[in-house]
Amino acid sequence: MYIGIDLGGTNIAAGVVSKDGKIIKTDSRPTLSERPYQEIIKDMAELCLKLLEECDLKVSDLDGIGIGSPGTIDSTNGVVVYSNNLKWDNVPICDELKKYIDVPIRIENDANAAAYGEYIVNGDNVDSFVAITLGTGVGGGVIINKNIYRGFNGAGGELGHITLVHNGEHCTCGNDGCWEAYASVTALIRQTKKAIEENPDSLLAKEAEKEGKVSGRTSFNAAKEGDTIAEKVVDQYIKYVADGITSIINIFQPNILVIGGGISKEGDRLLVPIKEYVKKHSYCKAVAQTEIKIATLMNDAGIIGAAFASAQ
Amino acid sequence: MYIGIDLGGTNIAAGVVSKDGKIIKTDSRPTLSERPYQEIIKDMAELCLKLLEECDLKVSDLDGIGIGSPGTIDSTNGVVVYSNNLKWDNVPICDELKKYIDVPIRIENDANAAAYGEYIVNGDNVDSFVAITLGTGVGGGVIINKNIYRGFNGAGGELGHITLVHNGEHCTCGNDGCWEAYASVTALIRQTKKAIEENPDSLLAKEAEKEGKVSGRTSFNAAKEGDTIAEKVVDQYIKYVADGITSIINIFQPNILVIGGGISKEGDRLLVPIKEYVKKHSYCKAVAQTEIKIATLMNDAGIIGAAFASAQ
Repeated sequence: MYIGIDLGGTNIAAGVVSKDGKIIKTDSRPTLSERPYQEIIKDMAELCLKLLEECDLKVSDLDGIGIGSPGTIDSTNGVVVYSNNLKWDNVPICDELKKYIDVPIRIENDANAAAYGEYIVNGDNVDSFVAITLGTGVGGGVIINKNIYRGFNGAGGELGHITLVHNGEHCTCGNDGCWEAYASVTALIRQTKKAIEENPDSLLAKEAEKEGKVSGRTSFNAAKEGDTIAEKVVDQYIKYVADGITSIINIFQPNILVIGGGISKEGDRLLVPIKEYVKKHSYCKAVAQTEIKIATLMNDAGIIGAAFASAQ
Repeated sequence: MYIGIDLGGTNIAAGVVSKDGKIIKTDSRPTLSERPYQEIIKDMAELCLKLLEECDLKVSDLDGIGIGSPGTIDSTNGVVVYSNNLKWDNVPICDELKKYIDVPIRIENDANAAAYGEYIVNGDNVDSFVAITLGTGVGGGVIINKNIYRGFNGAGGELGHITLVHNGEHCTCGNDGCWEAYASVTALIRQTKKAIEENPDSLLAKEAEKEGKVSGRTSFNAAKEGDTIAEKVVDQYIKYVADGITSIINIFQPNILVIGGGISKEGDRLLVPIKEYVKKHSYCKAVAQTEIKIATLMNDAGIIGAAFASAQ
């Protein structure tokens, strides 16, 4: 039995996970990230112990704890090297948590953990697998030879920060033109707002008014109702997403690539044109092609992936 | 002792390579690629046997032959699945060559072989290593866990065909905006010609006239003489190169990345601004950084890499 912890800037989510990848029970509490890290990690420990108790388990039943954390991670030494979200700098998270629960503890970057969770559940045990997450940013994780790929310094797999437009839109990372600056939910909202400004009488503008704000769903919803302005926004957004996916496939040619994050709930409206775009634009057409599919785990991916990463 | 063969659309180059990565002797002959593949492969065999004889070696002294070939390669079955350069379609190259020389024979994509050659000689035995080649196109090869990374279908590592400009310049691969369409020698020549057209009285234009044509060196040469037009071309070209390298580092975070191909002969004029660009624009600054350097083997990389790939 494992525990997986998905440590976020807002919430700490944790779950007891069985060896066959099933979540037995989950719970969460606010991170309150302004506190000293010792307090946050103490809360993580209490959350784990509470979960164990509620599942009638003892610490000795645990094979390990895995933590998925935002930021740059040193998995070897169990340290959060740097996290912008948590405002952490060289926090020895594994040693600190071990003070409360003495089992093997491992930490992974959260995007890597989520990718690994999708791999465990949807990866068919293939050699190479890529997961991308279309959320506030664009996250990614790469599995090679059935293991998480981290690069030599633990910072690899930042798929959202490949360039899509040289000298393009400014990205939160400081660079210009990153894929994330075009394919994230944040980018889609910006693209939708621009279309509304240019077309204030459109059905798209009315949809935004009805929703009370512009979200990642606004354009997709208005497009479903046949609004041509919204359709243009959605089509162009999907091209941005698909162009980045094409680059990733040209590099990795993974057996499987899954698309997760909030936008992935749009299902075939997203998936079908992405597949068409990749088929038309990818470099190698004479060979077997990567299977592209929608992720299924959503928020549980991080917990399951962290849990299983602890067994790596 | 190995033999490495670098099979190109124009020439077949082969070399006897010792187990410590030294080239003992090389030779080449024209590919004459319009011929039936059986004739080309017979020539490859004759070239190998001639090399052995000249080195006072017998077939029984050979541990293996490795072939680097352009196109999509099925290394497992020893087949060139498709090569545009050679106009080959499912050619069983290893079986055919084995008819003449019965030793273990292995085939690799030529860019992968060249990358592996650089890795063997300049890779310091690190876990992760990327080589890019700025030539007629932009080639690349990735070494992960000390092995060539091929993807599930053998077609991985097409680093030149990541997008640099969404909907940008048309690429020979059929897609638009590939890195290759901005960072290859072909692209630099196009960029130089455009600057000459716009500035017919520049020193750059005179340099091209002196050379009798526009080459990958024209702008670099005129820039060395202080021409500001040429400096602008070179600076922008290097930004295109460096932006793609930044993407690749954000993905792989390899221990080492080497830059080869004709343009790499420009040395520090290329390398220093690339390092500065990557340092400023890459995603993770809080961790150890990839070592970026100029490749040293040039044309021998393909022969050495193919030779050592035969031992993989």
